[in-house]
Amino acid sequence: MRIDLNSDVGESFGIYKLGLDEEVMKEITSANIACGFHAGDYMVMEKTVDLAIANGVGIGVHPGYPDLQGFGRRKMDLGPHEIKNLVMYQVGALKAFAEAKGAQINHVKAHGALYNTAGKDQELAEAIAKGVSAVAPGVIFLGLANSELVKAGKKYGLTVCEEVFADRNYNPDGSLMSRKNPEAILHDPEVAILRVVRMIKEGKIEASNGEDIDIQADSICVHGDNPEAIEFVRQIRKALKYENIQIHTMGS
Amino acid sequence: MRIDLNSDVGESFGIYKLGLDEEVMKEITSANIACGFHAGDYMVMEKTVDLAIANGVGIGVHPGYPDLQGFGRRKMDLGPHEIKNLVMYQVGALKAFAEAKGAQINHVKAHGALYNTAGKDQELAEAIAKGVSAVAPGVIFLGLANSELVKAGKKYGLTVCEEVFADRNYNPDGSLMSRKNPEAILHDPEVAILRVVRMIKEGKIEASNGEDIDIQADSICVHGDNPEAIEFVRQIRKALKYENIQIHTMGS
Amino acid sequence: MRIDLNSDVGESFGIYKLGLDEEVMKEITSANIACGFHAGDYMVMEKTVDLAIANGVGIGVHPGYPDLQGFGRRKMDLGPHEIKNLVMYQVGALKAFAEAKGAQINHVKAHGALYNTAGKDQELAEAIAKGVSAVAPGVIFLGLANSELVKAGKKYGLTVCEEVFADRNYNPDGSLMSRKNPEAILHDPEVAILRVVRMIKEGKIEASNGEDIDIQADSICVHGDNPEAIEFVRQIRKALKYENIQIHTMGS
Amino acid sequence: MRIDLNSDVGESFGIYKLGLDEEVMKEITSANIACGFHAGDYMVMEKTVDLAIANGVGIGVHPGYPDLQGFGRRKMDLGPHEIKNLVMYQVGALKAFAEAKGAQINHVKAHGALYNTAGKDQELAEAIAKGVSAVAPGVIFLGLANSELVKAGKKYGLTVCEEVFADRNYNPDGSLMSRKNPEAILHDPEVAILRVVRMIKEGKIEASNGEDIDIQADSICVHGDNPEAIEFVRQIRKALKYENIQIHTMGS
Repeated sequence: MRIDLNSDVGESFGIYKLGLDEEVMKEITSANIACGFHAGDYMVMEKTVDLAIANGVGIGVHPGYPDLQGFGRRKMDLGPHEIKNLVMYQVGALKAFAEAKGAQINHVKAHGALYNTAGKDQELAEAIAKGVSAVAPGVIFLGLANSELVKAGKKYGLTVCEEVFADRNYNPDGSLMSRKNPEAILHDPEVAILRVVRMIKEGKIEASNGEDIDIQADSICVHGDNPEAIEFVRQIRKALKYENIQIHTMGS
Repeated sequence: MRIDLNSDVGESFGIYKLGLDEEVMKEITSANIACGFHAGDYMVMEKTVDLAIANGVGIGVHPGYPDLQGFGRRKMDLGPHEIKNLVMYQVGALKAFAEAKGAQINHVKAHGALYNTAGKDQELAEAIAKGVSAVAPGVIFLGLANSELVKAGKKYGLTVCEEVFADRNYNPDGSLMSRKNPEAILHDPEVAILRVVRMIKEGKIEASNGEDIDIQADSICVHGDNPEAIEFVRQIRKALKYENIQIHTMGS
Repeated sequence: MRIDLNSDVGESFGIYKLGLDEEVMKEITSANIACGFHAGDYMVMEKTVDLAIANGVGIGVHPGYPDLQGFGRRKMDLGPHEIKNLVMYQVGALKAFAEAKGAQINHVKAHGALYNTAGKDQELAEAIAKGVSAVAPGVIFLGLANSELVKAGKKYGLTVCEEVFADRNYNPDGSLMSRKNPEAILHDPEVAILRVVRMIKEGKIEASNGEDIDIQADSICVHGDNPEAIEFVRQIRKALKYENIQIHTMGS
Repeated sequence: MRIDLNSDVGESFGIYKLGLDEEVMKEITSANIACGFHAGDYMVMEKTVDLAIANGVGIGVHPGYPDLQGFGRRKMDLGPHEIKNLVMYQVGALKAFAEAKGAQINHVKAHGALYNTAGKDQELAEAIAKGVSAVAPGVIFLGLANSELVKAGKKYGLTVCEEVFADRNYNPDGSLMSRKNPEAILHDPEVAILRVVRMIKEGKIEASNGEDIDIQADSICVHGDNPEAIEFVRQIRKALKYENIQIHTMGS
């Protein structure tokens, strides 16, 4: 049994620093690196690729909406053709930095509002998958478990990994409970870790209505925003080791 | 004897149209395609790559300063590390569109103030060449004849082509006369064409002081801004054919 | 009886030219001037304010979403607080150019997707009105006739003018038929002009279901994108004069 | 005897936080508020204006180059007409937020590379002063003591205040020693404070060659980037009080 731990990194911009990248890179196996649209810039991208390589972490492209002020978290009404090209552009840009260092990109995961919107919108999900398969057909397509992203990645011939969240409540249909719901976030780290372990070992999670649903956990999304977040990643790692679950970069 | 004809294209942005790309693409052999920094965007890039392929025109990357409002024509005080990464980013982005269409990028030429500044600044010229060689070591590096760009491209192991201008006056040291000088532009098309032919056949051009200087003409820079510009390209083509000079994509 | 003719102007950006501003300014009485978010920049703004003053045209602020690539036509998920501040910023910026020339801003009209979205969304419409009233309480608030914008302007104590469209079909509830409907646009200029005259004289328009609805026509939206559009404005002016309807800047 | 303490604030952007604004606002008398070009956005501007009002701090406009990635610290080759309009735009935008809160802008100080370049370039300095006087003729123009900014402000009829730096070495001609020189920054806080006191009381400072030069100290530039910077401001305040120098907002 094995699992990947992924985190958003490379989200600094110019003089602005965001995230404890150097710390979180030591704990994760896959890095979702911003590409200059919702965060990051060409200096940050290079530095973050270097950091991923130095830590043996899989290099992932993290394309987002062209909205630095909103950090890619505000939905924008872009059509599928625009989304496909926006993804191709960002994948190409990050690929350049990886290849220049003798490395390869390993996965692509959409960011923020693009990820959330596409998870429920077949047309957008397929636009993202189409963009990825056009530029980097061999990479892993990381999408929310049970979502349109997973279906779209498969449809376009990509290797798909399904992403789960340790600290989020799930709806009975397998989607994430909206953050607007006060019960969306689980605040007890022990409960979160137990749920993660069960997802990996049994492929099940208890949804918000108390019933079990099927879920495929290939990668867990973790955070490096603050020392508490990183401490939580360390606890997850400890629990996974105790359960004899290998922590391994997706696809390796 | 042979020569390439290159032109800046793909300079539209969003709703804004610039240049008669469909017309000029029929006349040139190499396209310098903007990459979203000084002009262009991911929709325009795809369309322009398609147009280049349809016309059998060599696909070139045309990286510029991050300054859409100034169209990349305003010098910005970026250091060599920033320039290297800015070039890598833009090359990677355009490469993605070319490869997605089953094509390859054939050359890189810096744009506007970046081209002009680097032409006289060894450090910046080398930063550009370094960026190109890191991401696309096999492409042709197109730079102003006799400039620092040419030296830098050679230093970093790139195949270099030297660019000449039909309608510009040259200083005795081989550099272009500044546009601030009223004699910088030659307004007589026949004179311009005679000079071009001589540069190709004899490797010589008469500088502003009346003396001949050596010049290597691998590619002529032409324009597609307006119908007159395109008519001028047609005249150049006619003269070149009359002189038995082959019009051929750089490096092909 | 009187009417205002308004048009979007000042939509050029940097090197990019858009619209026949110098022509359309001769025909209209109110100018909606872009403020650098969806179009325009500080050079274009100054030039357009000068042009409005030279033609005796009312100076209007035309705030839009921060989306130059999408020309403010793509809906963005901004909340009411963001919208209020975004409007204040743009109003302040244009006000500076008007006042520097000894003029005043006369009206504010939201642009594109912001206008369309707010027309149906009370919260956003009020956010815009709040922003305007905070910065320029004396200006006219121009909104789609019968829309949430009209109600919001009144609620926040602004003088409101209602805008009508000559060439658009109206739904029975007074809203504009969506452009996705093939019947949204009326292509017969004569029909369009007859409808305009009736809106002004009778306060009525025939909706898409054939029934008359009430409409208050304070200003007609016209376009200056191309020579045909300007010719259409001239035809409207001619018809209005024939009907003894005064063409007059809003509020004057 | 009196002095103003000014600091750059409102430099956060979107999700990115920069500076300890809430702390430094308690110690200063004038706030230089970024306007969305080199830093800041319309949400940050409103919040920062509120904070200045709450702390009784003078509201200042801090216009910079349009270069968020470079934080306005990279020189851009903009001409005087562009600079004038860029300043007008930013002044207008911030003025809107101040006036909406019932306050007024009190001063304008250019930022970063714009400040440094204009300090030595008469044409640019006058362009900034022209822009300010066109939009806000009653405000104070804050410029580097002895620089072109001071002359330009006076030429365009603005009330001028001269700014000094506590921790910087001065050239014999009264200009600041370049940061490229290792002796540019004084690292001993006690020395810095003694120099500040002498500038205020005697109007003199010892230049890098050991000789005294005349200097008019109306305002001291202080920083709020980190706890040490704020502690240094507190030490300056303490020393000023001990010397019976009033700490007072410029022009009040």
